[in-house]
Amino acid sequence: MEIDPRNPENVRAFEGDIQQPQAISLDEAAEIASEVQELVKAGRERSAWELIRRLHPADMGSIVASLPRASRETMVRVMSPETVAWMLRQMNPVEAGRVGTRLGAQMLTFVLGQVHPNQALATLRRIPMPRPQKVAESLGQPQVVEEFLAHEPDTAGSLMVTQLPMVAIGGLAEGARESMRALEEMRQKFTHIYVVGDDGDPGGQISMVDLALADDATPVRSIASSIVATVTVDTPAEECARLQRHYNLTQIPVVDGHRLIGVILSESLLSATVEQNTRQMQQVANVAGETVDGPLSSSVRTRLPWLTVNLGTTFLAAATVALFESTLTQVVVLAAFLPVVAGQGGIGGTQTLTLIVRAIALGELVGVGARRLLAREAVLGILHGVWLGVLVAVIAILWKQNLGLGLVLGVAMLGNMMIAGSVGAGVPLFLRRIGVDPAVSSAVVVTTFTDVFGFLLFLGIASASITLIA
Amino acid sequence: MEIDPRNPENVRAFEGDIQQPQAISLDEAAEIASEVQELVKAGRERSAWELIRRLHPADMGSIVASLPRASRETMVRVMSPETVAWMLRQMNPVEAGRVGTRLGAQMLTFVLGQVHPNQALATLRRIPMPRPQKVAESLGQPQVVEEFLAHEPDTAGSLMVTQLPMVAIGGLAEGARESMRALEEMRQKFTHIYVVGDDGDPGGQISMVDLALADDATPVRSIASSIVATVTVDTPAEECARLQRHYNLTQIPVVDGHRLIGVILSESLLSATVEQNTRQMQQVANVAGETVDGPLSSSVRTRLPWLTVNLGTTFLAAATVALFESTLTQVVVLAAFLPVVAGQGGIGGTQTLTLIVRAIALGELVGVGARRLLAREAVLGILHGVWLGVLVAVIAILWKQNLGLGLVLGVAMLGNMMIAGSVGAGVPLFLRRIGVDPAVSSAVVVTTFTDVFGFLLFLGIASASITLIA
Repeated sequence: MEIDPRNPENVRAFEGDIQQPQAISLDEAAEIASEVQELVKAGRERSAWELIRRLHPADMGSIVASLPRASRETMVRVMSPETVAWMLRQMNPVEAGRVGTRLGAQMLTFVLGQVHPNQALATLRRIPMPRPQKVAESLGQPQVVEEFLAHEPDTAGSLMVTQLPMVAIGGLAEGARESMRALEEMRQKFTHIYVVGDDGDPGGQISMVDLALADDATPVRSIASSIVATVTVDTPAEECARLQRHYNLTQIPVVDGHRLIGVILSESLLSATVEQNTRQMQQVANVAGETVDGPLSSSVRTRLPWLTVNLGTTFLAAATVALFESTLTQVVVLAAFLPVVAGQGGIGGTQTLTLIVRAIALGELVGVGARRLLAREAVLGILHGVWLGVLVAVIAILWKQNLGLGLVLGVAMLGNMMIAGSVGAGVPLFLRRIGVDPAVSSAVVVTTFTDVFGFLLFLGIASASITLIA
Repeated sequence: MEIDPRNPENVRAFEGDIQQPQAISLDEAAEIASEVQELVKAGRERSAWELIRRLHPADMGSIVASLPRASRETMVRVMSPETVAWMLRQMNPVEAGRVGTRLGAQMLTFVLGQVHPNQALATLRRIPMPRPQKVAESLGQPQVVEEFLAHEPDTAGSLMVTQLPMVAIGGLAEGARESMRALEEMRQKFTHIYVVGDDGDPGGQISMVDLALADDATPVRSIASSIVATVTVDTPAEECARLQRHYNLTQIPVVDGHRLIGVILSESLLSATVEQNTRQMQQVANVAGETVDGPLSSSVRTRLPWLTVNLGTTFLAAATVALFESTLTQVVVLAAFLPVVAGQGGIGGTQTLTLIVRAIALGELVGVGARRLLAREAVLGILHGVWLGVLVAVIAILWKQNLGLGLVLGVAMLGNMMIAGSVGAGVPLFLRRIGVDPAVSSAVVVTTFTDVFGFLLFLGIASASITLIA
């Protein structure tokens, strides 16, 4: 299969050859992946390629990415750089990014160095890998690097395509059709054509449906509708994704001043939503940006700093406990109940925190005052604290035959659940107020509070009423 | 504004009156919400309605939902049932569900009881609230209840629309255009027309782009392409959302046997992705299905059972500590280090767990064997354990001037980080293997393991080497 990638006709003929395959299930994909792996191991990489070359590029990509390093390199060489670049462009941006990361900078440079600069740029744009810049630079194509670096990652500028269908406000449906034809393969991605004034102002849009039903002689003015939202190149990807979801948009135009300069397609917006969600979940656990099958060193780099910070906060808790050494010496059984007080507070705080962080991210808190949310969570903390306090007191009394211990534990539990509710809501709301993403560091602050105050309450009350429990 | 909702012409004229508004920012929405609230409080609900009636229904909905209960009821009465039902239908399904939940069963019944049954059904379908069935039943319209109950929630059947454009395989582009025109307002939602055989088999699809560029006399066969994926009414919503993301699909046809019976639109698929993500984040914290501004009783119902279960697991940890009462009596300072060992293990386990749960949910583990993931996380646990073990030993030695204590703590830390890595990966992978959603209960199992084994290791080693540290 010899093709000259500089000739667009050839590329299209080639793409046509393997287009429109059927979806397969995750189980089927896993099965094919293990067959491919065995064939490559046995030196039969041509047969392995035959097995996957008629699959959807999305499946082709995830199967190639799943191979161990050596087999992956073999397969990429068998597939030819054009096919790999094409595959990455056909995949959704999230998965393309994952596959690109698995390929590594060196293999990507090899692949992209052999395709047309425009294709290299389009492929690179799909890959929000840690350092695509490195790849861009090693390609030795200055204009690719320049265009690639023109926009910050995770902004509208980095998500947009700049080749888009437009028609003049005074034009006819015929002209709109012309501008669609001119897009060639790309045209299938668009749901709207933009209607622009003489100065490049987007004055409206025509849906593909309305164009499909219009005669060639229909003035575009009569089938245009207004544009709900526009963004600029600096608008964060998360805000673009929010606009898509909130207003049910299929694509969002990007403007510079009033001039239309690009459009963010539906698949990029959806990927921005998926990435935002992944980042959020991971940030609460402080593993943001990591993948389960990336290099060990990157996992260590992501997790170890956070584990070390957390060590500091656990020593704060330890120092709190150490303050009460003499009390513990008198009633050593108190030590057994430390994990009960801290554990419940941590869980309660995390429940509140998760709800608030998610609601903030989805833009659900419009008109819902911070004071109302805080009050609500504090009340819930009291309700839960009363129930858990009574329960824990009864268990402790039955287990240790110590009424005083039970009472102290119950009161401490009630107090810590109130703290958990208030802090669990207060920390993310405060972080949002000062402009910090609450997903990033709320969890550590909240559990530090519930640990330290939980121990202070429990051991403090125990010290004060030591005659009751000793 | 008197309209007869039974007359579709009137409904359309009315909808046209307030369509195509511009997007507003979250801050602007919050500002308008507080103005509306003040106007309603002052008895000026008509002015409040004037303030929001030209907004996008998505903003109208979130502002109405943000009002306190009494003002919300006043606004809904001012808005007329038709407008509220229309607003809910225009919103994305996630937000419509949230607003519907805020309105409550009684107000929804009032609203939907006064619109056309088809509109009531379409509106109800948008509201995956806890008990829409109750609303459906109290409407007193048997066919609405029947159709509503025909499909399980969170399946393709509950997401699909059944009114869709089709054209016979032998037809012309002209016929495809006819079928689009017949859809009236709904038609803007479609990106493809289905090509069906004599038996209702979907044989292919025509993109709106290709239709827009085709002459009326073009045979549909020549512009049809194959369908990548179909689902059945029972396919889970999450799998439909995965197909959309993985294959970059805009809509997915639903088949019964081979017959085409419906289609899931892009906005419903996107909402399924958003809901899956919210559920996942919330399930890890065991607050699934809750909203930050719902009734207190529903929050208590969601969180308290889980807090109670967790109390059981913290008592397991307490019992483990209690086993070593005599050791603690001899070296009471050991108690201060309990939160250090347990805290680090819990954090390490949660990091691993979060990554694996998310990778499973995104279908990223194709061809990545469970054994490889387990081994990887165990190795990371050792790496992190060595670093944290040395660090914690040094701190303990410097702080407490006790070499033995430092050594015991360091070794326990290393051991617990290994447990954290293996259990954090093993539990979700095992749950997936036996067909249980790993997001639901992994977190409690993992932290119970790290608490109990952390204490066993730390206090066990301390007991065995008590002469070193006492």
